[in-house]
Amino acid sequence: MRLADLGERSGVPLATVKYYLREGLLPPGRRINATQAEYDESHLRRLRLVRAMIQVGRIPVATVREVLAHVDDDSLGLTVRLGAALWALPHPAGEAPGAPAEAAGPSRETAGPSREVAGPSRETAVDPHRAAADLLVDELLARLGWSAARELGALSPAHRALVTTLATLHRLGYPLDADDLLPYARTMEQAAAHDLDRMEQLPTPREQTEYAVASAALFEPVLLNLRRLAQCEESNRRYGL
Amino acid sequence: MRLADLGERSGVPLATVKYYLREGLLPPGRRINATQAEYDESHLRRLRLVRAMIQVGRIPVATVREVLAHVDDDSLGLTVRLGAALWALPHPAGEAPGAPAEAAGPSRETAGPSREVAGPSRETAVDPHRAAADLLVDELLARLGWSAARELGALSPAHRALVTTLATLHRLGYPLDADDLLPYARTMEQAAAHDLDRMEQLPTPREQTEYAVASAALFEPVLLNLRRLAQCEESNRRYGL
Repeated sequence: MRLADLGERSGVPLATVKYYLREGLLPPGRRINATQAEYDESHLRRLRLVRAMIQVGRIPVATVREVLAHVDDDSLGLTVRLGAALWALPHPAGEAPGAPAEAAGPSRETAGPSREVAGPSRETAVDPHRAAADLLVDELLARLGWSAARELGALSPAHRALVTTLATLHRLGYPLDADDLLPYARTMEQAAAHDLDRMEQLPTPREQTEYAVASAALFEPVLLNLRRLAQCEESNRRYGL
Repeated sequence: MRLADLGERSGVPLATVKYYLREGLLPPGRRINATQAEYDESHLRRLRLVRAMIQVGRIPVATVREVLAHVDDDSLGLTVRLGAALWALPHPAGEAPGAPAEAAGPSRETAGPSREVAGPSRETAVDPHRAAADLLVDELLARLGWSAARELGALSPAHRALVTTLATLHRLGYPLDADDLLPYARTMEQAAAHDLDRMEQLPTPREQTEYAVASAALFEPVLLNLRRLAQCEESNRRYGL
């Protein structure tokens, strides 16, 4: 198909398609003469993914380019290819903005006899909340038997983001323990198995990796709203109206 | 405890505590003389929740005030109280910014013979993607047996946000069906049961509602990162490294 048809079928404005082409987010078409090129279904699929990442996932163009470089790397085995593409995506860290400044210590005016109530000094280099979160994630992964996640540890951005989130919750007075987290991790384990089951229905490693990226970036609001609906349903079941 | 101790124990700067008091997000203390008031553990708990909602959840002050009004409404039954507090929270809708403008029709320059490929005209008042998403959510809830969620329908912001997200995915070329969504909904059903099990360990309906709000607003990054870790683990298990 021609460029105009690509815009038409995807619903993406032509100026946006041309911008993605210039930025290298969409591979060039096959030249058919000096002014025209031919595009195929793989361009359409890629165009949809790029638009979804940018418009729905709010992912910066440079990040999209990095993710796609991994998606397109046929030299990688599937686990590494999936891992590299997913690791390049933004990870929600649930970190309080300004938290490090606050953690540097209470303001002068509040320093006084009650100081020790706050626990170990937050002015030392080691953040006790982060240390607690590190131990917690390690214990959780050991009990889950997630050996790959444990070996990779802080190399994985999901691991780092999880530790940061739990450290923030700990600092804010919501300490969680491994017993709290285990059932959620088990349900996410089931969800991940469904993710891969669906992914495996696609024919090529490239399409599979594209699907994994789309699902990671776009499927999160679906999961979070299903959780809210389920909470309402379960609450109604237990306590009536 | 005095105001300074409240700031100290919570780690919240005193100026911030005073701001929350002025904005009515934190109830006033018990006056003990012309210049001083006494605060208790319930103030500390509330202060942590408010700070977490604003700093971690990035929730606007007016929204926090509305959520807390429901948390504090002792006249409500637990399901309605929980529902009202959770419904007032922001819901992630996964909507493409500018999508309605795009959906208003292809640009002039792409109008041509291939026009009909795009399917039913997107210039009509009824958005076919939204209609498909509406039908899909209805089928899903029927198959799940979530009768409360189905009766409430679009009254529930989670229901509306789910429809909007699925309509966006549909428009972007990622149509899902009820078979795709069922296993995720079932895992979220389990997660919701754990949420309420934990919540029930707290002694009063007010503390229970506070916990539900904190968990909805703050626990989402934990779940999403556990999902990413689980995907990596399951991928390693199936395909090796």
